[in-house]
Amino acid sequence: MAFINGEHHTNVRVRYSETDRMGIAYNSHFLVWFEVGRTELLRELGLSYRELEQRGFMLPLSETGVKYLKPVLYDDVLTIVTRVGNMAGARVRMDYEIRRSDDTLATGFTGHVFTDSSLRPVRPPKDVVELMNSVRGGSISAEDESE
Amino acid sequence: MAFINGEHHTNVRVRYSETDRMGIAYNSHFLVWFEVGRTELLRELGLSYRELEQRGFMLPLSETGVKYLKPVLYDDVLTIVTRVGNMAGARVRMDYEIRRSDDTLATGFTGHVFTDSSLRPVRPPKDVVELMNSVRGGSISAEDESE
Amino acid sequence: MAFINGEHHTNVRVRYSETDRMGIAYNSHFLVWFEVGRTELLRELGLSYRELEQRGFMLPLSETGVKYLKPVLYDDVLTIVTRVGNMAGARVRMDYEIRRSDDTLATGFTGHVFTDSSLRPVRPPKDVVELMNSVRGGSISAEDESE
Amino acid sequence: MAFINGEHHTNVRVRYSETDRMGIAYNSHFLVWFEVGRTELLRELGLSYRELEQRGFMLPLSETGVKYLKPVLYDDVLTIVTRVGNMAGARVRMDYEIRRSDDTLATGFTGHVFTDSSLRPVRPPKDVVELMNSVRGGSISAEDESE
Repeated sequence: MAFINGEHHTNVRVRYSETDRMGIAYNSHFLVWFEVGRTELLRELGLSYRELEQRGFMLPLSETGVKYLKPVLYDDVLTIVTRVGNMAGARVRMDYEIRRSDDTLATGFTGHVFTDSSLRPVRPPKDVVELMNSVRGGSISAEDESE
Repeated sequence: MAFINGEHHTNVRVRYSETDRMGIAYNSHFLVWFEVGRTELLRELGLSYRELEQRGFMLPLSETGVKYLKPVLYDDVLTIVTRVGNMAGARVRMDYEIRRSDDTLATGFTGHVFTDSSLRPVRPPKDVVELMNSVRGGSISAEDESE
Repeated sequence: MAFINGEHHTNVRVRYSETDRMGIAYNSHFLVWFEVGRTELLRELGLSYRELEQRGFMLPLSETGVKYLKPVLYDDVLTIVTRVGNMAGARVRMDYEIRRSDDTLATGFTGHVFTDSSLRPVRPPKDVVELMNSVRGGSISAEDESE
Repeated sequence: MAFINGEHHTNVRVRYSETDRMGIAYNSHFLVWFEVGRTELLRELGLSYRELEQRGFMLPLSETGVKYLKPVLYDDVLTIVTRVGNMAGARVRMDYEIRRSDDTLATGFTGHVFTDSSLRPVRPPKDVVELMNSVRGGSISAEDESE
């Protein structure tokens, strides 16, 4: 539960509710695990996303992508590896890897835009940018998610 | 898609995302179908729940109950039968039946409280009470959900 | 994360995906948290629900009920308190409380039936019954969920 | 609810359960609407995905991507526009657009692999390939999702 070379690690256990009748985790739940990954990364940096919203900022998604590499099963303990990617103006990108032990089960990214509470793009708060920049430069999926 | 003896009928098709690895619909989604049932009942009465919120009223749940009678399967076309139950002060109860053709697969109810946008209980708007009262008196599960 | 007078405690943090536009946790997710509670209770007893299914047993819901007492908010750390309730034949009941610190935000129960993998009720495995019986007798909501 | 130049159109209404505390639809539900889109496209072709699974074939996701262009709101009636994209060996791609009236709110794609019931890639059934090929060649987001 810390940063290793700019990678933040956190764990979730796959819930029964997240499986489907194929017996594997349904595809949309990976986006929820990404949410858990970036929320815990921010918390580790001392940034509560809840507080960020109380300060009037929101960070909705502008884009996402997932590659499903191997089945994720019920009750698996997953490690969500999260990295801060490019930041430019109001935009920030996060990269993710979903692992079970040493196995990478999925990779993905989310693109976000800093907005005010009316969903209008805004300049992100300086302290947030600095903190996120301080952990940039990791190496998850630098090529395999590039577009 | 109309009222038959105070019962409102609407249909949903079971999504893959709503199944679990048992091969049946996961238990929590029934509450979402109840939401669809009461929303469409209100719409049939000329009440948009979205507009009700714009007028400053909300209708959060205070209670719910579900009886799961037979498995609900992927791609099933379900009929959600909804009835307005007791209304008293800020409180209203809705009763539900989930059917596939003539088969009742589940029954349930939700208890709600009319609140303002700060979640404080309020007197419900008169036009809403009158409209809901106008279709009360159906007979779904009058006894099997009694507590 | 242990039993205190027959009560099992485990924690979840409320995800953004679990909130709705009222700003509170949507009603159906409480059933998912109940799932987490009973799964972790069983695990604490040395019973993996995943393994139980591999042995050919399933434990689908026959019934559930929830009372929503106070709003559950984004990013709240919830304690799920779970107790084994009545057991009779193929049936077992679990009782739950959702707490934030000392505040009880919701109470509920689930009724289950032990079945084989074809969803036919079966006599539950003796070791499972004995283990579950060994922690029965707690006191959550003994009256407020009674029907 | 038919094909127009290789595009299949179907509608969903945004559920309260699909909103989040930002007041908009949470990002993961778009993947569920994509599921609805491709399922109804197949049904329009005379192919029930449920039957396809009964014949021993599954179509899990290998990849997905979404661009969120404008907020999707509670109770919105969305048109899901779905197209069959490239097919090669066991792989098939589907493209999507989420519209509200003439407004495009999101675009996306899913990549799938035909597998047997053990999730091993297999040659897709010939009738399925022929039917899907018969509606290929539409023009949704031919460039904006290219990678």
